[in-house]
Amino acid sequence: MKSEIKWTDKMHFSAKIRHHEHGMDAKAEFGGEDSAPSPKELLLSSIAGCTAMDVVSLMKKMRVDFKTFRVSAEADTTESHPRVFKVVHLKFYVDGENPDLEKIKKSVEMSLTKYCGVSAMVSKVSPLDYEILINNQVAATGKAKFEI
Amino acid sequence: MKSEIKWTDKMHFSAKIRHHEHGMDAKAEFGGEDSAPSPKELLLSSIAGCTAMDVVSLMKKMRVDFKTFRVSAEADTTESHPRVFKVVHLKFYVDGENPDLEKIKKSVEMSLTKYCGVSAMVSKVSPLDYEILINNQVAATGKAKFEI
Repeated sequence: MKSEIKWTDKMHFSAKIRHHEHGMDAKAEFGGEDSAPSPKELLLSSIAGCTAMDVVSLMKKMRVDFKTFRVSAEADTTESHPRVFKVVHLKFYVDGENPDLEKIKKSVEMSLTKYCGVSAMVSKVSPLDYEILINNQVAATGKAKFEI
Repeated sequence: MKSEIKWTDKMHFSAKIRHHEHGMDAKAEFGGEDSAPSPKELLLSSIAGCTAMDVVSLMKKMRVDFKTFRVSAEADTTESHPRVFKVVHLKFYVDGENPDLEKIKKSVEMSLTKYCGVSAMVSKVSPLDYEILINNQVAATGKAKFEI
């Protein structure tokens, strides 16, 4: 797979991924104009998206009864260069009438120990932890652990 | 920093990063509809964008004479889970009347040994190599090396 990005002006880049396009920019403090997410912010989307796709697939396979599903990824960066995420905090929000916590826990664990390639790639430098919230109540917590 | 993604349907997620929004989707073979880049493709944009912003800043500081600047990031993934990038291949394309190769090499080296946090985060699992192309001719090659 491939992304090709083209510099347009200041810190603005337009990215092309097959037939898809998106922008990247820096905030004013880094010489940009904040017209689009920063590369590091997009990495958080990439981590959240990778594990969320695993979890939604697994929840469907296990017939978990859920109505809405959200994932947030949040991180602070180190002060010294290279500025990397200290810890990536993931929150899995599952809402529904009666979602099965054990199956949800199993889905998240499978993603964050075996399947999620993006999380695995960053995990040696930036550890990941997670909370599972069922109808906005914290129901479980854990950490990513990959054997790579 | 934070990204929050919301499941909309099948494998489609809408991401919100502050006031910015973007989509993610999977290809049909993974149960999606390919309406947006995949999380792993976005990681390639993130890597390319992170190093490209360093390099464009450094080239400007060193007064490199360039007209256009593009960066591509390309990778194959492993067959076994977690599917990670085997190697990330970066190509830096600098076009101009008479761009100074030594200064461009210095800029790329500084990014990929010291500054680029996104590359640093993946580098322990997925090594990165690069080519620098001046007016479409390969002028230098190298590898990322971070001390973290």
